[in-house]
Amino acid sequence: MAKGLIIIGDGMAGRGVPELNGRTTLEVSKTPNMDRMAKEGICGIADPISPGVRPGSDTAHLAILGYDPYKYYTGRGPFEAIGAGLEVKPGDVAFRMNFATIDRNGIVVDRRAGRIQESDGTAELAGLINGIEIDGVRVYCRQSTAHRGAVVLRGEGLSPEISDTDPHREGMPVMKSKPLSEGAEKTAEVVNKLTEVIAEMFSRSPVNESRKNEGKNPANIALLRGAGAAPHVELFEKKYGIKGSAVVEVGLIKGIARYLGLELLEAPAATGGMDTSPTSMAETTIRALSTYDFVITNMKAPDLGGHDGDFEMKIKAIEMVDEMVGFIIGGLSKVEDDVHIIVSADHATPTTYMDHTGDFVPLIVWGPNVVSDSVSNYSERACMGGGICRIRFADYLPILFNLMGISEKFGA
Amino acid sequence: MAKGLIIIGDGMAGRGVPELNGRTTLEVSKTPNMDRMAKEGICGIADPISPGVRPGSDTAHLAILGYDPYKYYTGRGPFEAIGAGLEVKPGDVAFRMNFATIDRNGIVVDRRAGRIQESDGTAELAGLINGIEIDGVRVYCRQSTAHRGAVVLRGEGLSPEISDTDPHREGMPVMKSKPLSEGAEKTAEVVNKLTEVIAEMFSRSPVNESRKNEGKNPANIALLRGAGAAPHVELFEKKYGIKGSAVVEVGLIKGIARYLGLELLEAPAATGGMDTSPTSMAETTIRALSTYDFVITNMKAPDLGGHDGDFEMKIKAIEMVDEMVGFIIGGLSKVEDDVHIIVSADHATPTTYMDHTGDFVPLIVWGPNVVSDSVSNYSERACMGGGICRIRFADYLPILFNLMGISEKFGA
Repeated sequence: MAKGLIIIGDGMAGRGVPELNGRTTLEVSKTPNMDRMAKEGICGIADPISPGVRPGSDTAHLAILGYDPYKYYTGRGPFEAIGAGLEVKPGDVAFRMNFATIDRNGIVVDRRAGRIQESDGTAELAGLINGIEIDGVRVYCRQSTAHRGAVVLRGEGLSPEISDTDPHREGMPVMKSKPLSEGAEKTAEVVNKLTEVIAEMFSRSPVNESRKNEGKNPANIALLRGAGAAPHVELFEKKYGIKGSAVVEVGLIKGIARYLGLELLEAPAATGGMDTSPTSMAETTIRALSTYDFVITNMKAPDLGGHDGDFEMKIKAIEMVDEMVGFIIGGLSKVEDDVHIIVSADHATPTTYMDHTGDFVPLIVWGPNVVSDSVSNYSERACMGGGICRIRFADYLPILFNLMGISEKFGA
Repeated sequence: MAKGLIIIGDGMAGRGVPELNGRTTLEVSKTPNMDRMAKEGICGIADPISPGVRPGSDTAHLAILGYDPYKYYTGRGPFEAIGAGLEVKPGDVAFRMNFATIDRNGIVVDRRAGRIQESDGTAELAGLINGIEIDGVRVYCRQSTAHRGAVVLRGEGLSPEISDTDPHREGMPVMKSKPLSEGAEKTAEVVNKLTEVIAEMFSRSPVNESRKNEGKNPANIALLRGAGAAPHVELFEKKYGIKGSAVVEVGLIKGIARYLGLELLEAPAATGGMDTSPTSMAETTIRALSTYDFVITNMKAPDLGGHDGDFEMKIKAIEMVDEMVGFIIGGLSKVEDDVHIIVSADHATPTTYMDHTGDFVPLIVWGPNVVSDSVSNYSERACMGGGICRIRFADYLPILFNLMGISEKFGA
């Protein structure tokens, strides 16, 4: 059977960089493999949601996978929690969590607790509140990457319509969660009680004892944000009739992939950072293509350079994506079937903005059934003139499945 | 008054053909008339429904005529039946039908009954069951092109939610129709009883006696498929305030046109095959433009080459479409008013796929009020760079009516 692959360079698109004479990092990067694909395929630009709308990584990936984020996205919490390895069931309310530092007056002085790492004991801290019960609501907690974690509340009558305890900047006190709609009072109360329990238990933890001895900021609080209720979704295989898998690095995207029923395949040397391995990710992708009809592969690195405002780092990361693309193309001979590929960013993360923007992203559609255009470079500007013109992420899978020859005909 | 014309080369769009060095049949065909229109007009690409979605001829034409197929399409049966000349009323359930051959064990051995033709007596066979009544349900039956026909059931409480009796391949028995939802039991039962009546009456027909004597497969069964309920539509003239007509060749498109209230004009030498007459279709189109505000003309031939996987046949057919276009342009002086024209395919039927695909199609918008672009050829690739960029069939009539100067202003 024909195979389909979507390769995402996370946050790979951008804007003109003054130090690069107004060129974008994609334009400056050396990307011979993506350029070759652009030349052989058909190019264009795509809006993650619709023109100008700023997507998260989560809403962007929901859209790419054909799940309307306006319908299925109710907050980042559930997907982050699943990505962290927590079970999330319909009816649960889930949160993203930061390990953070407060002073004796309850003012947040460090939202990342001295950039605490999992090796510093975040699992031990999360374990302190995992499984406790407050007012009949069960609390689950788990660490994820670095200073991050997730909390899931399970019980009767919970609502995601509550405000964050995270003040979102330092120098402010931990916020009281407030109900944002009727019926959310109980959930806000549970969250506020939970925050007190966290403060008490974390402050007594040996993890923080040793951090203080080392002169590091203690993780003496956890800040909750992004409350969301787990949506009801039709699983990927049921929805499309094919088996899909994901080769992705970070918890949030893993969470989305798993929640939609994609099989998560771990590339052994993938790290989610600048030290990730393009070869390892490419090899795992090729292996996935031999078993699954559809694969989505996401390399996180370009997004990091974007968020850090570091164009040199972003260029290096884009060239790592290109290296991965080259290994994938080179390995396609190991896949017995025709493979059609879409190369895209999930959103722009311009180094000049240091966060996601609602800009369009350039895309390539490549494979034996594609009628090629005259674009021969992969960048925001080069793809503007492409044969695809302008589409949306919601169009990606219909286009891919049509080229793969697995679409149902609507009509006769 | 200004006039509008849509010229459809059925299935005319395609993909790269290996034997043509990756060029498409449209790129290779000699189409001086469409190229001239491309040069004088504005070009672009269009998605029949939305990017990647594979349309039928029926859903594509509903979309072209401004009727959302997701709203109005409930199965091919009703349009096929109307095209065959049967009356279809709201509430009726209609089917497409094949005259076919079963052996003595009821196994379908030829789904086309030796490619039986109307001249072989399909009208006589259809007449055997036309007008009969089963369990209070009136049955109407009529032959259409070649081995095809249509059946309409009229009565209380009918449902289109039933399975086909057509096994869709040879070597299988005639299927029992099954209800696919609650309330469809009666309809399935009527269809199964009808199938028994058909088997009995057809086997005794003199038509089949003579076929057996000639060593041809008898039409001793009729296989039903594509059950659909007739949708409620606002007729074309009511919806748009102008009178429309259609110069189309095949039953299905005729059925759609008539159902929507377009006047069917028969081109005397049109056949729906490779032996059709471009001049006859062009002359009928010119005549139609003198009387009607809007005309849609569809030549079937390119689709045939696509379905047959025969690129030489498809090239010849595309050149026949171009010949027709040339005659139409040449005859416009006979029309007293300005004429704006859209040239398009209704979908791609690549010879490499031998069925409709969800690929985009190239289009030309031509006429005195058009601001032209720099495209000077009509093909998938040439039109990629066109001034229209990328639109959908649902946009065709609004664009045409705007150029004709007959659109209502939305606002003041």
